[in-house]
Amino acid sequence: MSDASGIRNIADAFARVAEPWQPHRLASVNDYDVKVVKLDGEFVWHSHPETDELFLVRSGRLTIALRDADGEREVELGPDDVFVVPAGVEHRPRAEEAVEALLIEPAGTVNTGDAGGARTQPVREL
Amino acid sequence: MSDASGIRNIADAFARVAEPWQPHRLASVNDYDVKVVKLDGEFVWHSHPETDELFLVRSGRLTIALRDADGEREVELGPDDVFVVPAGVEHRPRAEEAVEALLIEPAGTVNTGDAGGARTQPVREL
Repeated sequence: MSDASGIRNIADAFARVAEPWQPHRLASVNDYDVKVVKLDGEFVWHSHPETDELFLVRSGRLTIALRDADGEREVELGPDDVFVVPAGVEHRPRAEEAVEALLIEPAGTVNTGDAGGARTQPVREL
Repeated sequence: MSDASGIRNIADAFARVAEPWQPHRLASVNDYDVKVVKLDGEFVWHSHPETDELFLVRSGRLTIALRDADGEREVELGPDDVFVVPAGVEHRPRAEEAVEALLIEPAGTVNTGDAGGARTQPVREL
């Protein structure tokens, strides 16, 4: 989807993403991916035992429920907000209305982490 | 600079960056950094032999001159544009007016890469 120069545009990328919960690769930096994803509704509890996961909200409001040894809490992200879910921390994203977000994580990171199941999606190309 | 929840806001981050060409760490994902930087004027030719470097322009227009075995070319990035300078490719960013950009690259990546010199800056904390 990049033009001949190799530039990718984030707005153009989101325009090509039709469905929520389907991560699309925007760019790669060595063995890390920057993905665009739309979120709508509630996802499943999961964790990524091997890696942190960065959320950058572009539009909408995203709630991330977090569960660890200290109990459960929520963070609520709006546009321009960045949050890193540490490796191994269980989390469940929830969007009351449609959210556009960028994700930064190692290539090969699976959207449902250690939970697997029906919500697992491959990373799509734009 | 993050609030008690661990959220960081990109607009707040740029408001805390006074000078151009001084990268500030916005967040870390494992051993990768997401940095905010203001660019104004012309930088020095340099490359990062060991790593790709991602530029995400938030405001303004950024020109990146690129030089490799095929010769020299330029890419011009506006808001929402993303470009990855591949490892080892010489590049020189230039901003005719002030630009705000995010950088994604491994922790420890030096702003002047293999060129060093007076423009070298440490990564600052917000």
